[in-house]
Amino acid sequence: MSASLTVALDAMGGDGAPEVIIAGAAIARERHPNAKFLFFGDQRRIAPLLAKRKSLDGVASIHHTTEMVGSDAKPGQALRAGRGTSMRLAIDAVGDGRAGVVVSAGNTGALMAMAKLVLKTLPGIHRPAIASIFPTQRGESVMLDLGANVDCDADNLVQFAVMGSVFARTVLGLLKPRVGLLNIGSEEIKGHDILRLAAARLRAAPLPLDFHGFVEGNDIPAGTVDVVVTDGFTGNVALKTAEGTAKLYAEFLRRTFKSSLMAKVGYLLARSAFNKLRLRTDPRRYNGAMLLGLGGVCVKSHGGTDAIGFANAVSVAVDMAVNRFNERIKEEMVELGRAACPDSSAVAI
Amino acid sequence: MSASLTVALDAMGGDGAPEVIIAGAAIARERHPNAKFLFFGDQRRIAPLLAKRKSLDGVASIHHTTEMVGSDAKPGQALRAGRGTSMRLAIDAVGDGRAGVVVSAGNTGALMAMAKLVLKTLPGIHRPAIASIFPTQRGESVMLDLGANVDCDADNLVQFAVMGSVFARTVLGLLKPRVGLLNIGSEEIKGHDILRLAAARLRAAPLPLDFHGFVEGNDIPAGTVDVVVTDGFTGNVALKTAEGTAKLYAEFLRRTFKSSLMAKVGYLLARSAFNKLRLRTDPRRYNGAMLLGLGGVCVKSHGGTDAIGFANAVSVAVDMAVNRFNERIKEEMVELGRAACPDSSAVAI
Repeated sequence: MSASLTVALDAMGGDGAPEVIIAGAAIARERHPNAKFLFFGDQRRIAPLLAKRKSLDGVASIHHTTEMVGSDAKPGQALRAGRGTSMRLAIDAVGDGRAGVVVSAGNTGALMAMAKLVLKTLPGIHRPAIASIFPTQRGESVMLDLGANVDCDADNLVQFAVMGSVFARTVLGLLKPRVGLLNIGSEEIKGHDILRLAAARLRAAPLPLDFHGFVEGNDIPAGTVDVVVTDGFTGNVALKTAEGTAKLYAEFLRRTFKSSLMAKVGYLLARSAFNKLRLRTDPRRYNGAMLLGLGGVCVKSHGGTDAIGFANAVSVAVDMAVNRFNERIKEEMVELGRAACPDSSAVAI
Repeated sequence: MSASLTVALDAMGGDGAPEVIIAGAAIARERHPNAKFLFFGDQRRIAPLLAKRKSLDGVASIHHTTEMVGSDAKPGQALRAGRGTSMRLAIDAVGDGRAGVVVSAGNTGALMAMAKLVLKTLPGIHRPAIASIFPTQRGESVMLDLGANVDCDADNLVQFAVMGSVFARTVLGLLKPRVGLLNIGSEEIKGHDILRLAAARLRAAPLPLDFHGFVEGNDIPAGTVDVVVTDGFTGNVALKTAEGTAKLYAEFLRRTFKSSLMAKVGYLLARSAFNKLRLRTDPRRYNGAMLLGLGGVCVKSHGGTDAIGFANAVSVAVDMAVNRFNERIKEEMVELGRAACPDSSAVAI
């Protein structure tokens, strides 16, 4: 990152706000020496916390507000009554160019609704989607949508595929990401018509992605593809099922190591190896749900994360901005539009 | 089980057929001393295998056919051309009363299509569903549908809830199973309209089940409810995601124990505890996908299972028959119909 990048932070969102937000920003600042921070929230609570953070000295400012979005506020409520909230003001900072990215650990539905209203969607993108990175047998993959759109048409899915593959290229560093459409069978015959239509379009699309075709639930953790594309209902269920299953096996493991004296001693010997595994599968490592397709970079941190997790969400946002994530999406959407209407190619730019 | 029960087996379905089928039946016979077996398939291959199994002596007969359903046959194909196949003849045996249950490790789509045609659906059940048992933090739960019905309406989901809760009572032995509808948020506002409608009906239904409301993906492995109800698309993705995630963590565990000498020694010490865990999470333990809602008991075994896994699928089928699974569904559907149309209660029986 050569030039400086300003990060707008909703200092009041999430279970540990504002402490976790300020501590997370301090960690992020160490990783991104050109980052500056705008904190939106209660000055009386933020200022004393900031004063303790040397690394944020001179690169942070506070925009005071005592209003905040409730963690259980409905998106519509937040839109109507939330103009003065820390979340909304942080998004506004990206909207009017004072910040390059916004990160919030607050209410996801409110964040998406406000971000859509303020930042609008990118040209050619009908609906933004929520994406997340997760660990696989092969490394890491990205999946979208994770809940922004319960029902999706084929166009939505194709656009998600574009956004997911641009993310895999710019943030995960892959040259030609493999993209799969989540279905219930790898045979062409199965699943919804919408999926078949989306598959046909992706197969024909002149995009720098490797369309793998349909994948099934087990392909998600297997890492069969780098980008898993699905509607928000299925994606949300799949992600949460995977998280819950990981928890179940961690619990099985804990019980197993406690089940006998021999097993306890075995654990003591294997502990350092297990600490490495814990790092590898640490949910904080995968913290940060990206709201893709908006006219500005917006990342949602898990509400229950700690400072390290929050710093990781900030890092994803910074990576997206630095790697010109949105510009690349715009370019690919132009390519896609040109392929769909070859006659209008001169106009499409 | 007091009276004898005849089990019809598709001896030619699955990767290890017919060897696994005959070996599995021999194990099942030891568990169910009143069971008899009808094997449908190639006499020349089955007879020598049967001759070696003392436990099946005098309680097994072979119905010869050389036709079989291909593992990649489409359901429609199997329906049209499959009248003489081992799968179809095994189903026919239940249809005409020669057998009480049928088990096949063959093609799921063909099995469902043929079973629907021959056995029909139970009164009040619009569509059969595929169900399976899986391990959770609290023990075991059952989920349906797992792929028979890509799109479901509220009636379908209510019927799945009835079938799943009857299964949990009769086979898992629960008195009043907790039933949850899979959704992407526990708040009433989220998810499809169909889910809200199904939830309202289940809340009002006079059934011996405890309707918990909506559950999310993480609730599946957590065991928040005993019965998870969802459409076949979502259920299939969730089940396969859970299976794939379990595999991912088993692989992480394997790598961790191999990553250092200390970890290897630790594994040796903890090995017997891990063997117990392996038994607890053994996929063979959960083998057997129940085709519920048909006018006869039909269980699908995993095609790649071994004799123990196949025997478990047979055991589930036997349990369902012995515990009058289908009769109880009929009774509850009458109750449900009576509640919906109180005036016609005299006619409903």
